[in-house]
Amino acid sequence: MSTQLWAGRFEAAPDEAMQTFGASLPIDWRLWREDIAGSRAHARMLAAQGVISEQDALAITAGLGRIAARIEAGDFDFRIADEDIHMAIESALIADIGDAGRRLHTGRSRNDQVATDMRLYLLRRTRELAERINRLRATILKLAEDNPEVILPGYTHLQKAQPVLFAHHLLAWFWMFSRDFGRFKTAHRAADASPLGAAALAGSGYPLDRQMTAAELGFSQVIPNSLDAVSDRDFLLDALFACTTTVLHLSRLAEELILWSSEEFGFITLADAFSTGSSIMPQKKNPDFAELVRGRTGRIVGDLVGLITVLKGLPLAYNKDLQEDKKGVFDALDTLELALGATDGMLATLRVNSEHMFDGAQGGYMAATDLADFLVTRGLPFRRAHELVGRLVLLAEKTGRRLSQLTTEELLAADENFADLQPETLAVEHVVARRTTEGGTAPVRVAEQLLLAHSRLREDAAALNFEDGEEH
Amino acid sequence: MSTQLWAGRFEAAPDEAMQTFGASLPIDWRLWREDIAGSRAHARMLAAQGVISEQDALAITAGLGRIAARIEAGDFDFRIADEDIHMAIESALIADIGDAGRRLHTGRSRNDQVATDMRLYLLRRTRELAERINRLRATILKLAEDNPEVILPGYTHLQKAQPVLFAHHLLAWFWMFSRDFGRFKTAHRAADASPLGAAALAGSGYPLDRQMTAAELGFSQVIPNSLDAVSDRDFLLDALFACTTTVLHLSRLAEELILWSSEEFGFITLADAFSTGSSIMPQKKNPDFAELVRGRTGRIVGDLVGLITVLKGLPLAYNKDLQEDKKGVFDALDTLELALGATDGMLATLRVNSEHMFDGAQGGYMAATDLADFLVTRGLPFRRAHELVGRLVLLAEKTGRRLSQLTTEELLAADENFADLQPETLAVEHVVARRTTEGGTAPVRVAEQLLLAHSRLREDAAALNFEDGEEH
Amino acid sequence: MSTQLWAGRFEAAPDEAMQTFGASLPIDWRLWREDIAGSRAHARMLAAQGVISEQDALAITAGLGRIAARIEAGDFDFRIADEDIHMAIESALIADIGDAGRRLHTGRSRNDQVATDMRLYLLRRTRELAERINRLRATILKLAEDNPEVILPGYTHLQKAQPVLFAHHLLAWFWMFSRDFGRFKTAHRAADASPLGAAALAGSGYPLDRQMTAAELGFSQVIPNSLDAVSDRDFLLDALFACTTTVLHLSRLAEELILWSSEEFGFITLADAFSTGSSIMPQKKNPDFAELVRGRTGRIVGDLVGLITVLKGLPLAYNKDLQEDKKGVFDALDTLELALGATDGMLATLRVNSEHMFDGAQGGYMAATDLADFLVTRGLPFRRAHELVGRLVLLAEKTGRRLSQLTTEELLAADENFADLQPETLAVEHVVARRTTEGGTAPVRVAEQLLLAHSRLREDAAALNFEDGEEH
Amino acid sequence: MSTQLWAGRFEAAPDEAMQTFGASLPIDWRLWREDIAGSRAHARMLAAQGVISEQDALAITAGLGRIAARIEAGDFDFRIADEDIHMAIESALIADIGDAGRRLHTGRSRNDQVATDMRLYLLRRTRELAERINRLRATILKLAEDNPEVILPGYTHLQKAQPVLFAHHLLAWFWMFSRDFGRFKTAHRAADASPLGAAALAGSGYPLDRQMTAAELGFSQVIPNSLDAVSDRDFLLDALFACTTTVLHLSRLAEELILWSSEEFGFITLADAFSTGSSIMPQKKNPDFAELVRGRTGRIVGDLVGLITVLKGLPLAYNKDLQEDKKGVFDALDTLELALGATDGMLATLRVNSEHMFDGAQGGYMAATDLADFLVTRGLPFRRAHELVGRLVLLAEKTGRRLSQLTTEELLAADENFADLQPETLAVEHVVARRTTEGGTAPVRVAEQLLLAHSRLREDAAALNFEDGEEH
Repeated sequence: MSTQLWAGRFEAAPDEAMQTFGASLPIDWRLWREDIAGSRAHARMLAAQGVISEQDALAITAGLGRIAARIEAGDFDFRIADEDIHMAIESALIADIGDAGRRLHTGRSRNDQVATDMRLYLLRRTRELAERINRLRATILKLAEDNPEVILPGYTHLQKAQPVLFAHHLLAWFWMFSRDFGRFKTAHRAADASPLGAAALAGSGYPLDRQMTAAELGFSQVIPNSLDAVSDRDFLLDALFACTTTVLHLSRLAEELILWSSEEFGFITLADAFSTGSSIMPQKKNPDFAELVRGRTGRIVGDLVGLITVLKGLPLAYNKDLQEDKKGVFDALDTLELALGATDGMLATLRVNSEHMFDGAQGGYMAATDLADFLVTRGLPFRRAHELVGRLVLLAEKTGRRLSQLTTEELLAADENFADLQPETLAVEHVVARRTTEGGTAPVRVAEQLLLAHSRLREDAAALNFEDGEEH
Repeated sequence: MSTQLWAGRFEAAPDEAMQTFGASLPIDWRLWREDIAGSRAHARMLAAQGVISEQDALAITAGLGRIAARIEAGDFDFRIADEDIHMAIESALIADIGDAGRRLHTGRSRNDQVATDMRLYLLRRTRELAERINRLRATILKLAEDNPEVILPGYTHLQKAQPVLFAHHLLAWFWMFSRDFGRFKTAHRAADASPLGAAALAGSGYPLDRQMTAAELGFSQVIPNSLDAVSDRDFLLDALFACTTTVLHLSRLAEELILWSSEEFGFITLADAFSTGSSIMPQKKNPDFAELVRGRTGRIVGDLVGLITVLKGLPLAYNKDLQEDKKGVFDALDTLELALGATDGMLATLRVNSEHMFDGAQGGYMAATDLADFLVTRGLPFRRAHELVGRLVLLAEKTGRRLSQLTTEELLAADENFADLQPETLAVEHVVARRTTEGGTAPVRVAEQLLLAHSRLREDAAALNFEDGEEH
Repeated sequence: MSTQLWAGRFEAAPDEAMQTFGASLPIDWRLWREDIAGSRAHARMLAAQGVISEQDALAITAGLGRIAARIEAGDFDFRIADEDIHMAIESALIADIGDAGRRLHTGRSRNDQVATDMRLYLLRRTRELAERINRLRATILKLAEDNPEVILPGYTHLQKAQPVLFAHHLLAWFWMFSRDFGRFKTAHRAADASPLGAAALAGSGYPLDRQMTAAELGFSQVIPNSLDAVSDRDFLLDALFACTTTVLHLSRLAEELILWSSEEFGFITLADAFSTGSSIMPQKKNPDFAELVRGRTGRIVGDLVGLITVLKGLPLAYNKDLQEDKKGVFDALDTLELALGATDGMLATLRVNSEHMFDGAQGGYMAATDLADFLVTRGLPFRRAHELVGRLVLLAEKTGRRLSQLTTEELLAADENFADLQPETLAVEHVVARRTTEGGTAPVRVAEQLLLAHSRLREDAAALNFEDGEEH
Repeated sequence: MSTQLWAGRFEAAPDEAMQTFGASLPIDWRLWREDIAGSRAHARMLAAQGVISEQDALAITAGLGRIAARIEAGDFDFRIADEDIHMAIESALIADIGDAGRRLHTGRSRNDQVATDMRLYLLRRTRELAERINRLRATILKLAEDNPEVILPGYTHLQKAQPVLFAHHLLAWFWMFSRDFGRFKTAHRAADASPLGAAALAGSGYPLDRQMTAAELGFSQVIPNSLDAVSDRDFLLDALFACTTTVLHLSRLAEELILWSSEEFGFITLADAFSTGSSIMPQKKNPDFAELVRGRTGRIVGDLVGLITVLKGLPLAYNKDLQEDKKGVFDALDTLELALGATDGMLATLRVNSEHMFDGAQGGYMAATDLADFLVTRGLPFRRAHELVGRLVLLAEKTGRRLSQLTTEELLAADENFADLQPETLAVEHVVARRTTEGGTAPVRVAEQLLLAHSRLREDAAALNFEDGEEH
């Protein structure tokens, strides 16, 4: 005998191995909260519209409450033959309350049901991830504030370029994650529209009140086209894209933590709690978590590419291919959440080796630009000054000296304007302090930037109502 | 002798083959307009701030004007030894005006220069693409309005599901592209911040006025961190993502055009101007353009994955890897523009075979849901009604009949409530008209939806000021 | 107190949440068989080389045997604090046999250990998948042999092109999967080299006999460079690539099954056991499994892209990022195995609607090429004949007729050579039979091709010793 | 008036913008050599089989020769209206020789023609790339031989792990590229089968001799199924995959060059000819080419993903989507060729700073494993020795000393076996020399490995007949 709720028109039961292949239950059981919330809203609306009786609606919502309690308690028997979370819950409901349960699916299809579940799930998770990003942003700001005067070499091409404030460097990370916060907000809004009531693809003949269910479930609007409602997975692409840019930023940050904690750079020391050892080499203390964060970028990028591949060339409306939307999205969100936590933890506990940073900032002829700029103030065109200083660098390098170790004679031989040069102005602190353009690394500018960052973080937190506590 | 403007500190010239490998000029020459605009703004600002003389600034802006005229006229000699568009223009400027030209690069680096160019380019192109999407949306609305009463089968799993209005189906496309419009607006805003003045990575010691150059170039804000300003390529990911979702939608639409123009479906006939023939089979008329649109999805997805791969694990600040940001972005935007045009053209010129659509809508037992719903109105729980009708479908199928051809006896044997069934209510038009839930396919609802769509399109057009004519 | 085997040099235990983030045990426990096999071989070799005592080696192999039995019986307690399968087993071994267990890891690192495990796993799984592909190939051949004379329309651009034998079409699939078999053979060989003895990265100071462990584990060679041995993951890319091409082929086949089982094509009917229904529409019978196969393409492509992303830019030798090599590979191999089984099942149980196929082959003016070829035999250059027949098709189409319904006058008006045309030669069977070039669709050629296919399948089965039964 | 050779059945000419969209000529003109070779072989075969006259065949081959000469000389007028390289050449041929030209396409379709062209192109290019890889392998071997005794720190997790020979590290690269050579050989073989004679999809009614054309074109076999012959693009996936693994390896090597040429590592100095400067910072000497190599990984990965996306879900046989196979393949092969050349050049010209490497090898407690191994020789189980040495490392680190600076008392306090320890055995040279397992870093083993590498390189060169000079 067939066990499927849709099996009326079939003569043979599904092949068993195929049931396993086709079942999404091992993945979509995570949607049980959303599925039950959606069914309750649907039942109440059916009653309010007179499609089912108030009594049936009460039996349904009570029965769903019991099922929720059982799942919560680990007491619910998920059977693969139920295919998916929708059928698993509906079967259990019918087993519990009989015919009233058989009325729940009136005017509804799994097509709009699963879309509703996923959107509810995304509403919650995008907010959680956005909030997690904000915690990381706060940690970054704290680290910047705790180290206001630390200077390290700034790099381009992994070659020393110009010295910068460590706080300035950290703020670059802050702004990267600020944009990611924005992408999660966008993804949140993309999820915020109710498909419930679209039924299979064409809408329903029952007098369903879509605004009522949307409001009860916390959606701010209904999707205006039933075909689109059941076949659209853009909101998942938006979420996966937000995950992708965030983890790319995390991978860039992780690369720097790995470099900085190498013996060669030595800028930071990661806490023991965020390092691991080697099974063979007793001396090793490895930045495993930073490497894992960097490595897991692959997984999230793969999840994005996976859903893109699924969607390519699919005709309307619902196709079973869309079942493949869940695993990757769950995986990407979970992976990112852990990676954000790991990064937050590393930053909160690392030791800043400020002397190593400062020592590093002495090398690399990093005052060369300032030397050229000095000549510009004396009237030389920048291009000529650049070339002339380039030759001085070559001279210093070939003779194993720093720029400040060039003799007065050598400097004057290059350009007589150097007569007025005050060597101390080439010191690293001066080089940093001189960069006072808006957004520059001069301490005065970085202090302004910190204020701006705090204010932005407050605004962002307010934008998703993170502080009202209701959601978490 | 070295020809590079940065070559002061080098003893040997670049390897020639490597010059070709390293040069971005064959790709970034397309940024010449933006590069010249950026340089002009920079020069004027330098003069306003007293860093260079007014006279030099005038010489520079005039010289750049002459270069622009030469490039426009095809009269400019791009040399690979100049590496990139920035050096190509600066070299030509110095050749033209001498030392004044050597002052242009004061307080600037190619790092902030190229970021400025790309952002200016993206500001323009995202708007153009958004506008192109809107033209397609308008074409879709027109096609819907021209065919208000046409009914075709709605599909799920490529199996006939329920009949829908053709206009309703078209509107599903409309909303897909509405979201893409939104993504281009997001990408536009992401590009809208000026990096100019960040210099190499740390800001500058010159009293640069970043607000002045930003305003002159049409940016609404400056980027608040100089390191971020030169190393951020998020705005390109945002644009590539917008291209990706749009082309995914185009690929889904193209798939339907291909199916519909097959002999088997026969729902539409593509215009000769949008079809091509076979070199061997004289009878062939192929939907090549729809296939190309679908196929070019791969290119754009590849462009997105390409930039993601580039960015993974890059430390701050600028690394040469970032040079690889251009080719894919140019390619994706160009490809999408053509694909949008091709789709627009196909939709504007296709013939709707409404009788074939209507005939198709007779098959597939598509009134089965309504039959079950009828029983629900008589008190049966939906699940029971579903199972019972499922068995009737099986009976009809095995005896080669439609549901409407089942005898009264057969129906009554299944459920006595069928005594009250009026067979004409199962006709396709009634089935469509019955789906009156918000967003449903009933003509009254689709008419509402059309009004909503028009209003949304007007709002969107206004949002990017498409109608003021200045930009196009 | 620290619980990690590597924790001697650490002052603080790992952060708990981070333990979860860092632990690979939830994923790599699947390698327990391989890990134990590798450890046994290592212990025996250590004893043979005099590094540990025979007694210790016996204690170790016996202890590992007990652990294997416990895992097999579901009686082994995996603890997340053990990080990975290697530590989980070694900890249990030490708990069981004490100091002898502490000697197992002599001259070994997890770096070469995990590489050995993964290669052993891949050796087994690539063979299993190759064998699974061969089963599908056999099913395809059987379907072809069961339907030797069935004709269906051949398509290009989803437009009817020329009629072909159904068996010929099936054989196209056969050859696609033949190539995939070859790719799994390549991946099998890529995995077939032992890293054991490379230790952390540099080799070991103990007199390890790498040839001995390689031979015992079934590897045909050792990897000649210790750094490469621990950092190479190419063999996984090879396997993922083989999975990717195979699933791409499955997706193309699935697309055809979906098209063919639509009402519009009607070429096949999938078995009930390989179809599913709708929760709302009682009439639906959906090709869900074909859709799932097509959809899961995304997952496998994502897994490939994921590992590529991980590897990009990683310096030598081992980095923790490489831990991310497992999840995607396991997932891809499992997913492909199920997809191959689903496809096999669908093909083995579907019903061929040969009349529908034959009817379909009447349409589409598919004899047009033959009509042009007829004119060529009368001396017309092909290009002229092509153009002339193109015009006849246009005439037929505009007057709603088939080519065979054109009047003699119309034909003669086009070209007087048509006087000799025998209309029956345009019949579908003749058109098919005429294509006798090698590899063509004429029955005589297809029969040859079937023989060739059988012979290739036998060779392939022999190549991996599938028939000796020892492996499965 | 229509200009298309297939236009007989069309009433309207293609839309002009669409011609540009649809035309592949701007991309596929690169196949002109292959297209002409294929046409010549086809014409000769048609004559040999009596399908066309010898005279026509002579006119065709002579005409094609003239066209080849014109293209070679830059004298051929490519017109976009010709759509593709096939039509461009055929049109020119007809314009030149009239009706004989109109006979060339007898028994042929663009479907088998383009597949033939691409396979010929791939045969040539895969060989060229394989040869390019071998040149890089030879350069690597030379660098290893020129620096036989240089020691540098080996890293895992970018933390110093154990010292290794520089030559050993280089050989790890050698073996990576050896595998890539194998993949290009595989891709070469995948391309080596002739589709010519498959015609549109079903074979032809003309007595085509496919073996004859295959042999003339240098294919070793014909494709046994005509549908597969025109729709298979696996050979391109194989080539793109070979490009992908190769560039991944190049990206790993590039990452190391970038690290090593940083001031912090200082292991190498790139030649001026393979470095570039900064437009603002006079001191900068950047490893641009290594960064570009690493960055272009993205492009090639994107090309692979692009073709995968195109192929997903395509039904048989030819679809226009397949036109999208060219751009990415050309781009990937060209990009890889340049990246191989850049890497080769960098390696051939860099300066090895062997003292910096050796100094680096003193740090990082890299003898810790040997210290533990010493205790193992005294009877301690490895795990206990590992833990004990771990604590010594912690002690040394906290007191700012090296392991060799620990006092005898401290060592003896840890374990009395240390009484026998001879400190000089912990010197870097000894640590390296001790790793004598097969494939280990001991000089004696590395010397063996070099011999093996040379022998493998010779075999590989022979396998594709690179030394006969005919191909290059």
